[in-house]
Amino acid sequence: MAMGRIHTDLALETKEKFEEDNVEIRGVEIQEDYDEKKDIRTTVVKIKTENGARAMGRSQGVYITLEAPNMSVPDEDYHREISKEISRHVKALLPDKKDLSVLVVGLGNREVTPDALGPEVVANLRITRHIINEYGIQGMGEEHAHSVSGLAPGVMAQTGMETMEIIRGVMEETRPDVIIAIDALAARSIRRLNRTIQITDTGINPGSGVGNHRTGLNRETLGTKVIGIGVPTVVDGATIVHDAMAHLLDTLEEAEKKEFLEEMIAPSLHSMFVTPKDVDETIKRLAYTISEGLNMTFTQRKA
Amino acid sequence: MAMGRIHTDLALETKEKFEEDNVEIRGVEIQEDYDEKKDIRTTVVKIKTENGARAMGRSQGVYITLEAPNMSVPDEDYHREISKEISRHVKALLPDKKDLSVLVVGLGNREVTPDALGPEVVANLRITRHIINEYGIQGMGEEHAHSVSGLAPGVMAQTGMETMEIIRGVMEETRPDVIIAIDALAARSIRRLNRTIQITDTGINPGSGVGNHRTGLNRETLGTKVIGIGVPTVVDGATIVHDAMAHLLDTLEEAEKKEFLEEMIAPSLHSMFVTPKDVDETIKRLAYTISEGLNMTFTQRKA
Amino acid sequence: MAMGRIHTDLALETKEKFEEDNVEIRGVEIQEDYDEKKDIRTTVVKIKTENGARAMGRSQGVYITLEAPNMSVPDEDYHREISKEISRHVKALLPDKKDLSVLVVGLGNREVTPDALGPEVVANLRITRHIINEYGIQGMGEEHAHSVSGLAPGVMAQTGMETMEIIRGVMEETRPDVIIAIDALAARSIRRLNRTIQITDTGINPGSGVGNHRTGLNRETLGTKVIGIGVPTVVDGATIVHDAMAHLLDTLEEAEKKEFLEEMIAPSLHSMFVTPKDVDETIKRLAYTISEGLNMTFTQRKA
Amino acid sequence: MAMGRIHTDLALETKEKFEEDNVEIRGVEIQEDYDEKKDIRTTVVKIKTENGARAMGRSQGVYITLEAPNMSVPDEDYHREISKEISRHVKALLPDKKDLSVLVVGLGNREVTPDALGPEVVANLRITRHIINEYGIQGMGEEHAHSVSGLAPGVMAQTGMETMEIIRGVMEETRPDVIIAIDALAARSIRRLNRTIQITDTGINPGSGVGNHRTGLNRETLGTKVIGIGVPTVVDGATIVHDAMAHLLDTLEEAEKKEFLEEMIAPSLHSMFVTPKDVDETIKRLAYTISEGLNMTFTQRKA
Repeated sequence: MAMGRIHTDLALETKEKFEEDNVEIRGVEIQEDYDEKKDIRTTVVKIKTENGARAMGRSQGVYITLEAPNMSVPDEDYHREISKEISRHVKALLPDKKDLSVLVVGLGNREVTPDALGPEVVANLRITRHIINEYGIQGMGEEHAHSVSGLAPGVMAQTGMETMEIIRGVMEETRPDVIIAIDALAARSIRRLNRTIQITDTGINPGSGVGNHRTGLNRETLGTKVIGIGVPTVVDGATIVHDAMAHLLDTLEEAEKKEFLEEMIAPSLHSMFVTPKDVDETIKRLAYTISEGLNMTFTQRKA
Repeated sequence: MAMGRIHTDLALETKEKFEEDNVEIRGVEIQEDYDEKKDIRTTVVKIKTENGARAMGRSQGVYITLEAPNMSVPDEDYHREISKEISRHVKALLPDKKDLSVLVVGLGNREVTPDALGPEVVANLRITRHIINEYGIQGMGEEHAHSVSGLAPGVMAQTGMETMEIIRGVMEETRPDVIIAIDALAARSIRRLNRTIQITDTGINPGSGVGNHRTGLNRETLGTKVIGIGVPTVVDGATIVHDAMAHLLDTLEEAEKKEFLEEMIAPSLHSMFVTPKDVDETIKRLAYTISEGLNMTFTQRKA
Repeated sequence: MAMGRIHTDLALETKEKFEEDNVEIRGVEIQEDYDEKKDIRTTVVKIKTENGARAMGRSQGVYITLEAPNMSVPDEDYHREISKEISRHVKALLPDKKDLSVLVVGLGNREVTPDALGPEVVANLRITRHIINEYGIQGMGEEHAHSVSGLAPGVMAQTGMETMEIIRGVMEETRPDVIIAIDALAARSIRRLNRTIQITDTGINPGSGVGNHRTGLNRETLGTKVIGIGVPTVVDGATIVHDAMAHLLDTLEEAEKKEFLEEMIAPSLHSMFVTPKDVDETIKRLAYTISEGLNMTFTQRKA
Repeated sequence: MAMGRIHTDLALETKEKFEEDNVEIRGVEIQEDYDEKKDIRTTVVKIKTENGARAMGRSQGVYITLEAPNMSVPDEDYHREISKEISRHVKALLPDKKDLSVLVVGLGNREVTPDALGPEVVANLRITRHIINEYGIQGMGEEHAHSVSGLAPGVMAQTGMETMEIIRGVMEETRPDVIIAIDALAARSIRRLNRTIQITDTGINPGSGVGNHRTGLNRETLGTKVIGIGVPTVVDGATIVHDAMAHLLDTLEEAEKKEFLEEMIAPSLHSMFVTPKDVDETIKRLAYTISEGLNMTFTQRKA
C-alpha cells in the first residue's frame, strides 16, 4: 500500500482504505448505522482475531466511530444528543460493577490549541472521588455513584516524564477500576477534523495524537481496562501533501509511486501539523460535549 | 508566475521569487548583511517607486528582515542580541520627536497558539501612558520618556468588529504619534517559520497573518505612521501542497502548470494552517524577545 | 453614618443600611418579590428624584437585584432559570426598537480570577455583528435579529488607557444603540459574594469593581444608554475589618466610632481584596449563566 | 497566646511572635544578615531539637527566609540577584551527589491567580530528564548535569486525589533523588505578601498555602528529601480582622481576649483569602525569578 509513513488514528479510515483497494479482511466485523434525524453516522469496527489485528495494524477490540458533520458547529445545548450517544457507548464498555472507581486522563498539551482537548475535558468534568472518600457515597446524595478522579499529566516536553510513568504511578496509589483516556488524534482526512469521535476499549496507542506517546495506554501496559476517546483535530503535515500527490500519480505503478512519494515529502513536514483556523472555539465546544457525555455516564440520575 | 493564490507576507520571499525567475525589478533596492558572530542575516528591501510597488505587490517603504536560525531555540537571555537588533531598527523608523506617544497593537487571537504572538507581546510590554498622564514624565524618574499604551483588540469572530474599527476608535480618543502593530504572519517556506522577523514602515497589510484582516493598517487607513512587526508562525495549508507539487511539475509549461495546480488544491486547504508541533514554547519565547526589543526602545536608559 | 470610606456597589446594600438605621428616603421606591420554587429573591429599587439620588449616593434609575443562594453551586443547566430572569429584565431595559445594535463590554482583568467575570461573559457570547454586516439579517436565518458585538478592553495597568477612552473610541466607529457593561463588583457583605446579580439602567459607576474605573460608564459620559450587569465577587479588604470592629464598638457614639475606625484600618487594606477560595469554578459558572441570559435576549427564537 | 486558629506558614513569623512576647526558645538558632546593596534580608532559623520543634510548631530543620521589599516590583532582569540567592541556598540543601535526579513539583491551582505560583514556576523550568534519558548526559552538551522533571499535580477539587497520592505515585515510577516543592503560602502579615521567599529542607506542611493539603510533603511521608520553596501570596481572611482587633484589645487580659476574638471572627472568614489587587503581574514575576533560580541551580555552567 501507498500508506507508507502516513498515519491515521481512526480504525474507520484504515477500514476505508481496504475498501478502496477492494480488500476484504477476515476477523474484522463492521456494522454501520445512520440516524437521519440526529445526522449521526455510527460505525462499529470489531477486530476479533489475531489476523484481523495484523491486517488492520491495531489491537483486537471494539472501535466505535460517531460522525456528526454538525459537531463542530455552535449549538445551544452543546450537542446534548451527541453527549448522550457518547454516554451510551461508554456505559456499554464499562466493567460490570456498581460504584466503579474511574480515572479520567486528559492527554495532550493545554498550551497548544488543537492538543488541548484532553485537558479541557478533564477541566469540565464532575470530579467526585474526594467527596466519596470523605463522606461515602451518601455524600453524593445517591444510593450508587461512581467515584471519578481526573488527571491532565501534560506532555513530555513539559514534565520530562513519559505520560505512561505518571499514569502508572497515580494508578498504583489510587487503584482505579477503569481508565478513560481522552486524546486529540491525527486523522488522514481533513474532512473528518473535529467531526468524528472514536471510542474504543483498546485504549490509546503509540503514534496517536498531536504529541507522540511512545508507549500505548492499554490493558497490557497499565494492567487495567482503558477506554480511549479520541477526536481528530489535526492532520499530519505530510498527509495533505501525500494525498494531493497520490491523486496526481494515480497512473503510476504502486511501487514506483511509493518510492516517488517518500522522496518527495520532506521529513520536516512530519513535525508540522495542519489544523483549521477556527480551532479555538471548536475545541472548547467538543470538550464540553464529551465531558457532558461522561458526566451523564457517571451520575446515576442520568442513567 | 505559478504563485497564483499562494500567499506570503514576507517581502523577502517575494524578492526571492523574482531572483529565482531571474527577473530584476526597477525601483527596488536590496541590501544584505550577515553578522557571523550573532548568526543574524539582515535584508533590507526598499521599494522606492510606484513601479517597484506594483511589481512586488506591496506598498512603497522599507522592509527589514532579520533571519536568525536560533531564534526559536531556548536561550537564557531570551536572545537579547535579537531584541537589541529589533530595538535598533524600530528606533530608526520612529518619528523624530522626543517624548512620543506610542500605541502598540497586538493583533491576533490569544486563544489560537500560533496567532497569539501579538497579544503575548503586548502582555509583556512596559505600559507607561497612564503613569505619565497622572504624574508627568517625572513620574518615570527620567528626563525624557515615550508614553506607551497597548491594545490587543482580538479578532472579528470574538468582537464582531473589524480590527480597524477598534484601532481607529481608540486612536481618535488617545491620538498616538505612531502605531506599532505586531502580527503573526503566514510564510511560504516552512524553513522560515519562527526564525524570521519582518519590520516595516508600511504597517500591516490585508491577507496577513493567521486570521485575515480585511483592511490594511497603515498611514493611508489610519492617518498615522504604522510600524509593522511580523513573525511567520504558520504556512497556509495550500502552500505546502502547492510547493511539493510545483516541484514535481517542473517540466510542464507555466500556463498548464498553473491551471493544473489550481484544480488540484482543494479550496478547503486555504482554511487550514500548518504549524510546528512545538509552537507553544516558541511563541512565548518570540513574544518575549520582541517585547524586550520594544521595552529597550522606549526606555531612555537603554538608548 | 459609620460607612465612611467603606464602599458597596449594590444599591440593595445601601437601601438595607437605611433600613437598619430606620431612615425612610423620599424619592426611592422599593419592590420585593420572592419566587419560592426557584429560590430567587428579586428586589427592584427605583430612584425617582434628585433627592433620592443624593440620599442613596447613586444616579436616578432602576436597580434590579436577583439574589439566588444556589447561584454559585454547580448545576447541570448552569442555572438556566437565572439566565431566563436576567434575559427578562435586560429585555425590559432595552430601547424599544427592532434590530438593535448592541455592544457588550466585559470590564475587568482576565488575569485576576475574581475580576475575570466580564471578559469571560464576552468570551461566551454569541457575536453576530460581523455576520449581519456581511450577509444582512437574513444571514442569521431570521426575520429580525439584534446585532451583537463584544469588547474586553482590559484594565489601565494593561493598556495605559482609561476604559472609557477605549469604549468611547469604539462607539464612535461602530455607533451601537445600547451598551451592556458587565463588571465584577465589590460587596459589603461576604454573604452576598457570587450569589447576587445587579442589573441597572444607570450603567457602571466609579469605584465599582475589583479594579477602579475613574469615570462612570453611563448615558452622561457615553451619550448612549448603558445597562450595567454586576456580580459582587470580592469584598474590600478594609470592609471585613470594619464590619467586625463596628459590631464590637456598638456602644460607642457614632462620631467617636467613625473617628476610631478610620484610625484603626490601615490604608493598605484598601489595596487588598477578599474573595472565596473556590473563586475559579464560581466565576466560570456565573459567566456562563449571564452570557446565556444575554444570548437568550438577542436571539429572537428565544423571545 | 491569642494566635488561636490564626495561621502562618513562615517560620520567621512564628519566631517574631516569640520575640514580641519576650520568650526565648531553646533548641532554635537564629542568624540574620542584611545585604544593603541588594536590599535583601536573610534570616536562617534552625530548629535543632525536639523541644524547639514543639515550641515552634514545626519540624526540625533549616528555614531560610529572604526578604526583599523590591521583589514584587518590575525589574528588567527579573531580579537576577534574588534568583542567584535562591540558587545558592537550594544548592546548599541538595544531596551531595553528582548528576542528581530532581523532581520539581508546582503545588496549587493554576486557575486561581494567587495560587498559581507553583504551576507557573514549573512552566518556566528547563526540563531535561527526557533528553538525558534519551541521549545521556552528553545530550546536554556537558560533562555533568542534573536530570530535571516537573509536575503540576493540581488541587483536590480538580483531580479528586490528594496531591500526596499523585506525587507518591510519580515517585514510585521515576525514583527522584530529591523533590523540590513550590507553593504559594499564607502569611500573617500583609506587609510580607509577595516580598518574602522561604526555603526549607523540611518540605511543605499541612495547612500551608491557599488550598489546604491534608498531608505534609516531607521525608517522613515521601521517603525522600523534600526542599520546600514558598512565597506568601495571601493572608487568611480571618487574620486581618484578628490583627486589627487584637491591637484594639491590647488592654484586655490574654484569656479574655482569646475568647472574645474567637467569638467575633466569623468562621466563614476562614474560607476567604485576602490578596493584593495587582496579584497577576506579581505572580508572573515571582514565578520567573524563582524558576531562574532553579535553572541556575541545575545547569553546571552557572555554578
